Amino acid sequence: MTHNTVAAYAAPAPKAPLERTEIPRRELGAHDILIDIKFAGICHSDIHTARAEWGEGGHFPIVPGHEIAGVVAEVGPGVTRYAPGDRVGVGCFVDSCRECDNCRAGLQQYCTGELGMVGTYNATGRDGQVTQGGYSTHIVVDENYALRVPDGIPLDAAAPLLCAGITLYSPLAHWQAGPGKKVAVVGLGGLGHMGVKLAHAMGAEVTVLSQSLRKKDDGLRLGADHYHATSDPAIFEELAGTFDLILNTVSADLDLDAYLGLLRTGGTLVQLGAPENPLSVSPFALIAARKSFAGSMIGGIRETQEMLDFCGEHGIASEIELIRADQINEAYERVLASDVRYRFVIDTATI
Amino acid sequence: MTHNTVAAYAAPAPKAPLERTEIPRRELGAHDILIDIKFAGICHSDIHTARAEWGEGGHFPIVPGHEIAGVVAEVGPGVTRYAPGDRVGVGCFVDSCRECDNCRAGLQQYCTGELGMVGTYNATGRDGQVTQGGYSTHIVVDENYALRVPDGIPLDAAAPLLCAGITLYSPLAHWQAGPGKKVAVVGLGGLGHMGVKLAHAMGAEVTVLSQSLRKKDDGLRLGADHYHATSDPAIFEELAGTFDLILNTVSADLDLDAYLGLLRTGGTLVQLGAPENPLSVSPFALIAARKSFAGSMIGGIRETQEMLDFCGEHGIASEIELIRADQINEAYERVLASDVRYRFVIDTATI
Repeated sequence: MTHNTVAAYAAPAPKAPLERTEIPRRELGAHDILIDIKFAGICHSDIHTARAEWGEGGHFPIVPGHEIAGVVAEVGPGVTRYAPGDRVGVGCFVDSCRECDNCRAGLQQYCTGELGMVGTYNATGRDGQVTQGGYSTHIVVDENYALRVPDGIPLDAAAPLLCAGITLYSPLAHWQAGPGKKVAVVGLGGLGHMGVKLAHAMGAEVTVLSQSLRKKDDGLRLGADHYHATSDPAIFEELAGTFDLILNTVSADLDLDAYLGLLRTGGTLVQLGAPENPLSVSPFALIAARKSFAGSMIGGIRETQEMLDFCGEHGIASEIELIRADQINEAYERVLASDVRYRFVIDTATI
Repeated sequence: MTHNTVAAYAAPAPKAPLERTEIPRRELGAHDILIDIKFAGICHSDIHTARAEWGEGGHFPIVPGHEIAGVVAEVGPGVTRYAPGDRVGVGCFVDSCRECDNCRAGLQQYCTGELGMVGTYNATGRDGQVTQGGYSTHIVVDENYALRVPDGIPLDAAAPLLCAGITLYSPLAHWQAGPGKKVAVVGLGGLGHMGVKLAHAMGAEVTVLSQSLRKKDDGLRLGADHYHATSDPAIFEELAGTFDLILNTVSADLDLDAYLGLLRTGGTLVQLGAPENPLSVSPFALIAARKSFAGSMIGGIRETQEMLDFCGEHGIASEIELIRADQINEAYERVLASDVRYRFVIDTATI
């Protein structure tokens, strides 16, 4: 980077197709690293934000992308954690207040400070500038908000770990998935397929609950022990009281009481996607067996590194379809149609 | 008891006033104890059941009462745990399958066996007979489903511990209320006032969230550190992100998202009462700070004994208003009007 302007793909306005553009990146600060982005995953959140569907306005033009994998190109004078050539990733946030209880506990994603969690794109950083994401050739990030990608993981398949991977890893770790535990993953998409791989590697008995049996072969290959179609109402009787933990990756409205019925006493149903409508829960479904309905959002920096290291040790990465930058808009349509196995990743060399 | 017929107060039919009657009690089995009932608390559930409001039919006439305190009068030949003269209590159930994982783990209230948890009244026991509760002079119970009342607790004030006490103790223990934890109790009634006393004795910082400040003096006297009226919308901003644990004792429909907003990251809102309507929860309220919405129902035998021993050590009992049996119907009306501080207890000598 000879100057501070880099190539990127941006949504120029709500619902407009993404197009090639140039954006500024900040000068390297003392603790900043410049990353030569190699790959960027496409997350459903990118589409919501690019289309201003979450109603928070949006700082257009927006460069989406928070599943970033690349190589360190330059480091600021105070950087101690990384050196040029290191393989690194950036996830859903690039800063936080660093002072609140949650930041101190490594739960930066739940930062309660005034700054809050600074999203990787469409957020306002501590310098007052709007952040721009990973559909780009380069990004400048504080070294404390970058992650090290283990050597064993190809960079393209590593990118989706930075959001989809940690989104599943964090609740699996928090609610202690492991040997002797029965875990169900609802939905086998970009999130769900990571849940199957991770829960299996943790030693849990894994069940996929999907609308149909269309992806059953994939599910079993990825590590599921069982695979059921939720379109068959009989499975809700057959599997009643079975699971210690259910991770719901589906953002559509589901009959949550039916899924709560699949939990064992003391079990937890964790919502990961965020449907637009409020969710309805019968109090008896919770009270009669000390069940919990919980939520979880990505993970902190320390836990994200732990997840990457775990993936390195277990040979886990995302199943991806690599695309060129000029295929982004088409890929968005295919994500919305659930026509991807299981994550689109942009080769940023094509920007 | 010279024969097996004992005096009781029963609801002869749905919504009919309770009246004096006589009911049979079973012969003492090998492991049974005959309890000379001294006192029986009036729980809101009694009213729901006597009025057939939970829609499960009901085996009328019904003798309600599952907050029972008395003295052992006779023991069966195989009884090892109790002797005549012992002060004992009986709570919400009198049997369970004893073989399922939950029963083996001491969680009889969540029994998943075919027999299930056998309620103290209006349930069918393993002998096929319908159970009848504590508004009576005597009851026959398997020794394994009776509890020992510590000497320091007066029997009349002990009775409500068997339901109201354990209903609050179990979630406080399970979600680890104690020093350094901030606990809120929603509603200061029969359940809530026990929550305040128990959480305070456990060392937590206790806040009451009540509709008004009408009972504030009581709340503070019972052990609350803070007391707020939820009719003031400002408290939901003032207390945002404060509590580790919120116990909701209110069965009316509440704005749960508002209460979830009062939880710290990772906090849990526990529903104890069972409103008739499904509950609505915003997914963002859970996801954005790894919060949980959970339910809990009374406690198992071992935990109920632990609760009674804890109450004995800490000089805790229920705040009661002692009534005669002929005041039961009037007391029901006053419970429905929240006009009791904080539990009616029937002196069964007046039956």
